[in-house]
Amino acid sequence: MKEQVTVIKIGGKIIEEKPSLKVFLQHFASLAGKKVLVHGGGRTATDIASRLGVETKMINGRRITDAEMLDVVTMVYGGLVNKRIVAALASIGICALGVTGADCGIMLSHRRFTDSVDYGFVGDVDKVDVHRLASLMDSGITPVLAPLTHDGKGTLLNTNADTIAGETAKALVSVFDVTLVYCFEKRGVLRNADDEDSIIPVIHRDEFHNLVEHGVVCGGMIPKIENALAAIDCGVSRVIITSSQDLNFAHGTQILP
Amino acid sequence: MKEQVTVIKIGGKIIEEKPSLKVFLQHFASLAGKKVLVHGGGRTATDIASRLGVETKMINGRRITDAEMLDVVTMVYGGLVNKRIVAALASIGICALGVTGADCGIMLSHRRFTDSVDYGFVGDVDKVDVHRLASLMDSGITPVLAPLTHDGKGTLLNTNADTIAGETAKALVSVFDVTLVYCFEKRGVLRNADDEDSIIPVIHRDEFHNLVEHGVVCGGMIPKIENALAAIDCGVSRVIITSSQDLNFAHGTQILP
Repeated sequence: MKEQVTVIKIGGKIIEEKPSLKVFLQHFASLAGKKVLVHGGGRTATDIASRLGVETKMINGRRITDAEMLDVVTMVYGGLVNKRIVAALASIGICALGVTGADCGIMLSHRRFTDSVDYGFVGDVDKVDVHRLASLMDSGITPVLAPLTHDGKGTLLNTNADTIAGETAKALVSVFDVTLVYCFEKRGVLRNADDEDSIIPVIHRDEFHNLVEHGVVCGGMIPKIENALAAIDCGVSRVIITSSQDLNFAHGTQILP
Repeated sequence: MKEQVTVIKIGGKIIEEKPSLKVFLQHFASLAGKKVLVHGGGRTATDIASRLGVETKMINGRRITDAEMLDVVTMVYGGLVNKRIVAALASIGICALGVTGADCGIMLSHRRFTDSVDYGFVGDVDKVDVHRLASLMDSGITPVLAPLTHDGKGTLLNTNADTIAGETAKALVSVFDVTLVYCFEKRGVLRNADDEDSIIPVIHRDEFHNLVEHGVVCGGMIPKIENALAAIDCGVSRVIITSSQDLNFAHGTQILP
């Protein structure tokens, strides 16, 4: 039997709110077994960009990343957000190592080219160095991944944190029994956005398409569940969408094939 | 005989000038044996701080680091400068890992308290986890250290890069035969600031005091040479002050006890 590893992605306002981040990190630290934390930081990036006079442009929920915005996300994701988390984990006994995809060449990507939209310095993942990641974890290290990759030619690329988590989980399957957890503000995918108790406990692929068709699942939740289904297809054992305050997985939505 | 390791510190304008940084990193990559890179980034921090409306205050050449300035240096040192270097090294075949002192708890410090000046979130180094550093290097990793440490209680602290390099070199002495190189704009310590060829090839402790007394050595060079002498006292084999464009050590000033 393979050893278990849990890949947890956090994003949204929890990253900006120090007290709730602290509570989350305590839950994370107490999770048994090997684990990887992946974080976003888009709101802070937008705030710092605005203070620097750099305009934020989003298309389909994705940040257009010109050279100036690349510097902003490198500072915010790779520096401010990542190192705050690492220092907080260090204070509660976790040997955390904050990395981007460029560190130890952990995650290689290529710049996204589409006919319709120039996303700028945005990377789609090609390869995860699972042996390096596993070897770091074997030596007692908990990786904390910032949503940045590199093209192998010296350029950093902005990469969606949900994607980083999904690609990491899929790559780790060759070595571990992997659980992937997407944390967000709600306690799961809700049938009725106004009713916090209307959590859908399980979503299969067929139901997902129905839920999208009927507008129950929309916006940023669509690519998140698509990432989840792709992870399941690649051998990830469990994918759960839940609240960052519920790492017992007492609630939440499980995604199944 | 102990294995050799070279600890190189770069700072000043080379960090801002992409072409000269690229040349330096190529020299660094081609250096034989294990190595550690320590970088500064003060000019970029001052620039970003100014764009964010955060005032830079320096006392005795040290940055006063209030909460806002701590965020700036965390972004600039831990993110922008560190990850640019890491990505550049990755592109020339170096398995570089960018870290602050908080990552894997590599460098613990305490906040500096003096009666006269409140430096804010500035840390003086207490402990370097040399076994963790050595173990990373043994697995083929080249550490790239940003000038940030942590207090073990969740707070990052701004720490002078010359000090980080000196403390790292001293700690590595227990495992390695250590050479410490301080790179800067000049090709060594100059007897006459206006004459680039007036490099002083060797400075002993006694001569250092004379040179300070006669104003030949002044400003930021004084703590640099003090760091160098402290490193020698702790068993570092060689300390060289030279240009970032001369890693053959053809020129430069060697500091001796």
